[in-house]
This record gives sequence, C-alpha cells and structure tokens, in this order.
Amino acid sequence: MHSLDLLIQHLSRLPGIGIKSASRLAYHLIQSDAAYNAQLSELIATIQDTIISCSICNSYSEQDPCEVCSDASRDRTTMCVVEHPQDVLTISGSGAYSGLFHVLGGALSPLNGVGPQDLDFRNLIERIRKGSFKEIIIATNPTEEGDTTAMYLRHLLKDFDIRITRIASGLPIGGDLEYADKITLSRALRSRISFNDE
Amino acid sequence: MHSLDLLIQHLSRLPGIGIKSASRLAYHLIQSDAAYNAQLSELIATIQDTIISCSICNSYSEQDPCEVCSDASRDRTTMCVVEHPQDVLTISGSGAYSGLFHVLGGALSPLNGVGPQDLDFRNLIERIRKGSFKEIIIATNPTEEGDTTAMYLRHLLKDFDIRITRIASGLPIGGDLEYADKITLSRALRSRISFNDE
Repeated sequence: MHSLDLLIQHLSRLPGIGIKSASRLAYHLIQSDAAYNAQLSELIATIQDTIISCSICNSYSEQDPCEVCSDASRDRTTMCVVEHPQDVLTISGSGAYSGLFHVLGGALSPLNGVGPQDLDFRNLIERIRKGSFKEIIIATNPTEEGDTTAMYLRHLLKDFDIRITRIASGLPIGGDLEYADKITLSRALRSRISFNDE
Repeated sequence: MHSLDLLIQHLSRLPGIGIKSASRLAYHLIQSDAAYNAQLSELIATIQDTIISCSICNSYSEQDPCEVCSDASRDRTTMCVVEHPQDVLTISGSGAYSGLFHVLGGALSPLNGVGPQDLDFRNLIERIRKGSFKEIIIATNPTEEGDTTAMYLRHLLKDFDIRITRIASGLPIGGDLEYADKITLSRALRSRISFNDE
C-alpha cells in the first residue's frame, strides 16, 4: 500500500511521533470524517503562507506588526525576551504578563555553533534604545544555553538604566521534593525567597 | 492567530495528541520544509480515496482484492481472524504468518451495543465454507471484548472440521515478572507449555 506507507512515513517525521504513533494516526485518518481530513490538509498546505514573522518582535502572526506589538492596551514599559515564537504564546497564555515581547530566534550555543550573530540582539537593542522600557524580563529557557543567553543579555544591557530580571527557576508548582532533580533543587535553594520581607 | 489556532485545534483531535503536542506539531509545520508540508497535506487529502476495503477480507488496500487475498504464494489453508484492518499489517509485519486474513471490523461488546450483526461473521463463514482451510487462528485482542469474540467464534465454527486456535497470551518477551499485571500472569500460568513434550 504505497500511499498508506507514504502517509505513515511522512507522519513519523513529525516531532514526538514514532512509527507506531504514525501508523495509528494514519489509520485514524482513513476512518475519520472526510470534512475533517480536507480541513486539516488545507491548514497544513497553507500555514506557511498565512503565518509570518512580526517585523518588530519576530513572533509568529497573521499580520505585521503582530497582535501584541500593535495592541495599544499592552504595557509598553516592559519587555519579555524569549528564545522561540511559541514562547510568546506560552507566556501570553499564562495570563500573568501584559507587556511586549522580543523573540531572539534561539539561544546561544557555542557547541552547536550558534553565536550572537545568529540571534536577533540587534533589533532588541534598537527597540530598547527607541522605547521607554523600565524592565526587561529575560525568559530564555532554564537550560545551559538559555542561561548562557541570559548572562550575555545581562552584559549587553548593563549600560541601560533599565531593570533587568530573569524569570525564576525552582520547583514546579504541584511537584514533589522527592522527585526534583539535584540541579533544580539547588537552584530553588539558592533562589529562596525571604518570608520576613513580605 | 486564527489559522494557527485552527491548525492546533485540528491536530489535537488526532488520537494521542493533546493540546501541547498539537502546538508543538503546528510550530514544527510552520518551520518545516515547504515541500514536506505540501506532500503531507496531499496525502491527508487523498488517503480516503486511495485506500479501500478489500471485498474479500475487509482489510485496507489500494486494490480489490487486496495484496494478501490476491497473492497466490500465500498459504490458503490458514486464516487469521482479526478485529481491525491495522492488525493485518501488524501480523504481516511480524513475518511469522503467511496465511490469509479476515477482518471482523471490531469485537463483540454488549456493553457498547456491538453485537454479532455489527461484525462481519457472515463473509467469514462463507469463505470458510467455500475454501479449503485447515486452521482458523483467532487473533482478536487479549481484552474482554476480544476474548468474548473469540469464544463466540469458537462456538460459531464448532461444526466445521477445522482446527480452531487462539493466539497465546502471556508475558511479553523482554518483560519482567515483577512488572507483569495479575491477569497477564495468571493467564501465562494457565497457558504454560510443557517442556517434556518437546
């Protein structure tokens, strides 16, 4: 079955989808609603034409500037710097942030040959220079690469009279001390918060 | 982002894909190779037109009769009865079976309202009557529904002078006694094989 094998093979190239999951998805698609298949097919075929990069923040959007950059009601004194476009949606979705974003396009990784020239620091500096930001929140991932990028940013922004912060790392809410890894635990201890100050 | 939300929503309707995996897949599709997206889209759009049910065994195929039913080199004295079309591929793929198949289209499940009239027993009996089968292997799933279907088949086929067998249940190869569930373990004990007979 040439086309079924091809579909399974294509689905198995998606992230997190192995050959068994791909088979399961393919068989599901054979049996599913024809209208659903047509819609899914159309969305996959057109997604790269409808989604563009915002020329200001590099986030994904259907318009340029994106919804966040063009939303006058957002706090224009705070900027959250993230690695990837999807991080914008994750942080927006938390409902805990109402400022602007800047997507670097990745994290510094000397081992993988990703240097400062590969990430969008230039427009970030330009935006900070022209804007009226009071705080830059560095929300790169709590990984070695993300931390390296955060340290680089800290250095890069040190001459601006702006508060530079890093999102907290520690135990996930609902987690259990017993299951926390040593690095997370030591970071949680180091970043401990005083109860007396409150 | 209307189209991105729509894509995520559609992807999350696939089996085993939650909203987080769907987002990950959608972002992957935005960044992936355009030719790959076009191919995947085309395969999804056309799969239901290219894959048909074999009129003999009910298995999925691009031709009727299917590759198995029309393959003269296969053993036509053995038939393996399975629940779903994908089971044919799974069993064929094991390389341990070279006979014919019959897909029932599910398993008996009185609780879910699936009775004998909902499964293809009629063509199965017809095939057995007209064919020259020496053995019918019942390979329905080792679940309550699959076992019920197997018992029903055993009863249905009792007047034929044919060997009726059921695929073995027991500990999976590479498994560990410690992690086996009680039902699997008790079935493995009941179905124990004598070493003296060999």
